[in-house]
Amino acid sequence: MDSVRQAAEKSKQASYRIQNLPLSVRNAALAAIASELGKRKDHIIQANQIDLAEGARTGLAQPLLKRLNYDEVKVDESIRSIESLIAQEDTIGKVISKMELDAGLVLEKVSCPIGVIGIIFESRPDALVQIATLCLKSGNAVLLKGGSEARETNKALASAIVAASESIDARLKDAVQLLSTREEIRELLALDELVDLIIPRGSNELVRSIQSSTRIPVLGHAAGVCHTYVDEDADLEMAVRVCYDAKVQYPAVCNAMETLLVHQSIASQFLPRIAAEYAKVKVELRGDQATRGMIAAGKATEADWSAEYNDLILAIKVVPSLQEAIDHINRYGSHHTDSIITSDQAKAKQFMDLVDSASVMWNASTRFADGYRYGLGAEVGISTNKTHARGPVGLEGLAIYKYRLSGEGHIVADYAGKNAKHFTHRKLA
Amino acid sequence: MDSVRQAAEKSKQASYRIQNLPLSVRNAALAAIASELGKRKDHIIQANQIDLAEGARTGLAQPLLKRLNYDEVKVDESIRSIESLIAQEDTIGKVISKMELDAGLVLEKVSCPIGVIGIIFESRPDALVQIATLCLKSGNAVLLKGGSEARETNKALASAIVAASESIDARLKDAVQLLSTREEIRELLALDELVDLIIPRGSNELVRSIQSSTRIPVLGHAAGVCHTYVDEDADLEMAVRVCYDAKVQYPAVCNAMETLLVHQSIASQFLPRIAAEYAKVKVELRGDQATRGMIAAGKATEADWSAEYNDLILAIKVVPSLQEAIDHINRYGSHHTDSIITSDQAKAKQFMDLVDSASVMWNASTRFADGYRYGLGAEVGISTNKTHARGPVGLEGLAIYKYRLSGEGHIVADYAGKNAKHFTHRKLA
Repeated sequence: MDSVRQAAEKSKQASYRIQNLPLSVRNAALAAIASELGKRKDHIIQANQIDLAEGARTGLAQPLLKRLNYDEVKVDESIRSIESLIAQEDTIGKVISKMELDAGLVLEKVSCPIGVIGIIFESRPDALVQIATLCLKSGNAVLLKGGSEARETNKALASAIVAASESIDARLKDAVQLLSTREEIRELLALDELVDLIIPRGSNELVRSIQSSTRIPVLGHAAGVCHTYVDEDADLEMAVRVCYDAKVQYPAVCNAMETLLVHQSIASQFLPRIAAEYAKVKVELRGDQATRGMIAAGKATEADWSAEYNDLILAIKVVPSLQEAIDHINRYGSHHTDSIITSDQAKAKQFMDLVDSASVMWNASTRFADGYRYGLGAEVGISTNKTHARGPVGLEGLAIYKYRLSGEGHIVADYAGKNAKHFTHRKLA
Repeated sequence: MDSVRQAAEKSKQASYRIQNLPLSVRNAALAAIASELGKRKDHIIQANQIDLAEGARTGLAQPLLKRLNYDEVKVDESIRSIESLIAQEDTIGKVISKMELDAGLVLEKVSCPIGVIGIIFESRPDALVQIATLCLKSGNAVLLKGGSEARETNKALASAIVAASESIDARLKDAVQLLSTREEIRELLALDELVDLIIPRGSNELVRSIQSSTRIPVLGHAAGVCHTYVDEDADLEMAVRVCYDAKVQYPAVCNAMETLLVHQSIASQFLPRIAAEYAKVKVELRGDQATRGMIAAGKATEADWSAEYNDLILAIKVVPSLQEAIDHINRYGSHHTDSIITSDQAKAKQFMDLVDSASVMWNASTRFADGYRYGLGAEVGISTNKTHARGPVGLEGLAIYKYRLSGEGHIVADYAGKNAKHFTHRKLA
């Protein structure tokens, strides 16, 4: 078995071989992977049964067990997701801009793969398939590091992906590699000269610990503390519907609402109505003093304003103005996804301009912040980074660019001193 | 005096105030800064004289003293650079893409500033002006940390920039702040929740030490180990001219050539010709065995292949093939800028496809890799990062985007289960 460094060195070499594979070859590899997953479906499901049994035996938490489950429905979903990925537009080799610097000297900015992507994930076998195939489509090599709880499933999936892609083109050898043993996360994070980007998919704790222990850029988010602000000019019926959806439709995920902000002038009308809806599904409410004067709610502490419950719990605060809502969100939020409910377009614009989050919304549920719903196809994750890629990240987040300059023996000395030549800097189509 | 954290908190607040300042206001601030630098020219030059005298007294190295010099010519250059920045296209508020997700539910991806940029620089007062004004133009707040060797010059420049920008719009208060004392770099690097991007401008040692001691993304490059590969199909006269320029025209900078690779079949013709040129300006040559068999050169050790001399020293290696040249560059280079000299278009394409560098060139001097020559106007620096921004980075590298979703009370529950509504995912112009 290779060390992590050896595996990463092979990945780097593979990344050089595959960075310019024609789209047809990359798509053929994806089609072969989809077909291989179909052929090996029984084997993969059996492997997953072993992991599930072991998880149950060792007392893995119920939500983790649920995410670990990879049954026939999930395999079929993975296959369909690969098929839709094949149909997606290529993100590499695009000429982003082209400029004549001077006669005979032409500069192109061309998109290209990033190189070697390290994926670290817990449970979620579907994430392994989705991210590995996104990397291949975008010409990147990928090192996969799964949790031990999904060991057998990950082995079965990775071996199908490797066999299928290598059967299409020998240059794809080592383009996908599965790492396995426990120490390897730390080793992987130390290889900043070989690994170009780390994408963690898992608990907040996992992501935070990775972010603070590597020089490699990390794409993702640690927390999803999302807000809905119900403005004084909100359609209250709409506000009830959207706030219910944002909290209740799937509370365990990062784009669910965790804090509800309500303008003081409509709070006494709105809060009893939404509280009645939440009561039907037993949402636990934690309010500030003003809230507790209007509805039954526990006392929200300072910690509640930055809490990500991922559960049927909601913090509620009454605010005196739009600006205070914006300030609260920028201060306590996680810059993930925040929404305003209002009929006033100017206020919506102000909110969307000033809230510093990856997704800002108007009269819509925060739950829409997702690569599939945003039309990106599959996603590698949702980023709260302020550089490179922000919000739901699909194929485009796996591309960067290089500059290509073609001349006829041009030298810089000709553009210096007296009689210096001048640049034309003429944009080309 | 504020602590670094207090200053960074003010920067963050300022970044929220200025992120949507109209272009006219940002340009008016730039014009005011240019004018103020003109008015305070004598004062700024006097301040610089104090720093230069102190540097001479304390024995500051000659190259550092040269970079520290900020005389009338340099002030005028800074003013002209601001004037050309005013003319540049806005990079924020651009709709990058727009999509109807479903009837009445529209998603826009809109460019916006990054937020708070921390600049750490040694000497180079011109870099302070250039980067601070690039940040203001692109709607970012900036924390400036200069070296103590330029203390008086930096104070004079920052105070002119602050006075001029605040005179235009009160919202620009705290948008530019100069940090001063010595401990502050470490404190600044720890503020990852307040500072969104660090741009270091200085020695390789400074950049490397910053990269390994912060969770904040760092934009820049530590090393510039640039190559020229002279192919068997090169026009040798052109090769001599370009290789001379790449090494000699300005050897102290990151885009100067450090290693020359020569195809074995033309090495015996080419090497004596270029060596004769280099001898005229006393370039020290360090060659591999094959090179030393053809020209007088010292012995290149393994360390020479990854050395950035920034001086009139050149490592030379004879290679048996284009592929070996590419492999050498990807292995030993710094992924900054590399050039091939050849008359064969297919080989040029192969080189530019496979060399994993920010700038790849064909029949041109590596010295062209620069924001001004690339037509970007001013630059914040040259990046060898594989994410966000690569190569010479201008205004665009100081922008990111956010998603804006506008609905009519849309909820995710309507798109789940049976009778689920379907997304239209229709691209809009």
